[in-house]
Amino acid sequence: MQIDIQFLPSLPDRSLLTDRIVVVIDVLRATSVMVHAMLQGALEIIPVASVDEAFQMAKVFPRGFVLLGGERESKNIPGFDLGNSPKEYVAERVKGKKLILTTTNGTRAFHVVSSGKEILAGSFFNIGAVAQRCLESNRDLFIFPSGDEGEFSLEDTICGGMLIDLITKKGQKPIPLTDASYAAQILYKRFETNLLEAFHLSRHGKELTDRGFGEDLAYCAQTDITDIVPIFRDGVIRIERMQKAE
Amino acid sequence: MQIDIQFLPSLPDRSLLTDRIVVVIDVLRATSVMVHAMLQGALEIIPVASVDEAFQMAKVFPRGFVLLGGERESKNIPGFDLGNSPKEYVAERVKGKKLILTTTNGTRAFHVVSSGKEILAGSFFNIGAVAQRCLESNRDLFIFPSGDEGEFSLEDTICGGMLIDLITKKGQKPIPLTDASYAAQILYKRFETNLLEAFHLSRHGKELTDRGFGEDLAYCAQTDITDIVPIFRDGVIRIERMQKAE
Repeated sequence: MQIDIQFLPSLPDRSLLTDRIVVVIDVLRATSVMVHAMLQGALEIIPVASVDEAFQMAKVFPRGFVLLGGERESKNIPGFDLGNSPKEYVAERVKGKKLILTTTNGTRAFHVVSSGKEILAGSFFNIGAVAQRCLESNRDLFIFPSGDEGEFSLEDTICGGMLIDLITKKGQKPIPLTDASYAAQILYKRFETNLLEAFHLSRHGKELTDRGFGEDLAYCAQTDITDIVPIFRDGVIRIERMQKAE
Repeated sequence: MQIDIQFLPSLPDRSLLTDRIVVVIDVLRATSVMVHAMLQGALEIIPVASVDEAFQMAKVFPRGFVLLGGERESKNIPGFDLGNSPKEYVAERVKGKKLILTTTNGTRAFHVVSSGKEILAGSFFNIGAVAQRCLESNRDLFIFPSGDEGEFSLEDTICGGMLIDLITKKGQKPIPLTDASYAAQILYKRFETNLLEAFHLSRHGKELTDRGFGEDLAYCAQTDITDIVPIFRDGVIRIERMQKAE
């Protein structure tokens, strides 16, 4: 098993996707929203790149069956049903519904890595289940932090580092790491006991706090609260629940 | 003052170079060679991208005045005078000479960032002097680890992190950091008391050890042994000596 992590969300080399399990991470907040919505009973999520595409897509489905969610510049989108705070995605709103989601970094990332063999949505919420799925697949792993407007994202990289840490600890044999994988693991270890500290250091965490979404930081720092693993296939994210080891 | 560090050695956005002081880092071993050679009295260094270019360039200058140095796949280049171990670049060989240098990552990096306002060669050897120069220039800073065959390099990033750590500690006012700058600083702090440990973890460090250049790792981990700051201008690297603070 080989583990790679790419620090910038540009199109990866094809060799890093082919036959690989790919984990997309956007802790603040797209993949946290996805995992949370699925946990609360959302049926499926369609990640789209633009606001226009979201409105067009919504017309295809029966009214009342579909909800529009997401953000631009961290703010709610006019005409949308939901923003990009995981806490909004509660059973009363999302159970049995199809969600169309568009965010600045995260939803785009799924399309960038769409040629991967199996594409998972990772967040701190479901980190243990994602690690288990990666170990069971026994495929090479490519971790794709979705970044901060094209730049390196501290919180996404730390989440990737936690995934690497879990996999290397649980794995049967030693896994050789790339320089980037070591770096991500070290960054995670630095904040292991206080993820929220990293969120507050990060540019995006500061922006969210400034825009009144500070509570989302603590919410998204909750670790391993569900065994749900959302999987992106043919343009749609659906649920897969892992049985916890031990 | 703003500090950016780019983790992959691809062509940076032009805004990160214009009017900026740029520090190129290739600890193992190109910028370590450059600083060491200058310390031992080399007159100037011409970094070139290819072996052919090096041979062509050498013909332009009087015989005996110029030396060819560098590596491919970490190994010495047939027909060259010197390899890529800093220790080879001693006064007896290099004093008063012009060096033409070609390496896999480092020499290319200078040309990639050539539109920067002032381009410095940084290594652990001269890290304090480089930090001082950056502080005195009062320009925005762009740190460019030259990477490992296009990939993220742990040792170059850690050297960049040490530079950030020195500058933020010595600076008159607090400097806001990007996520990438925080990450580099954290990686440096992890290995602050044992840089060699990081070199041994890194892919390139392992390769050098496997190829018989293990001694170069400890040699290049020496910190702050000179106040020389090599500056790249119009295709040539020349010396600038800094007066040490306090």
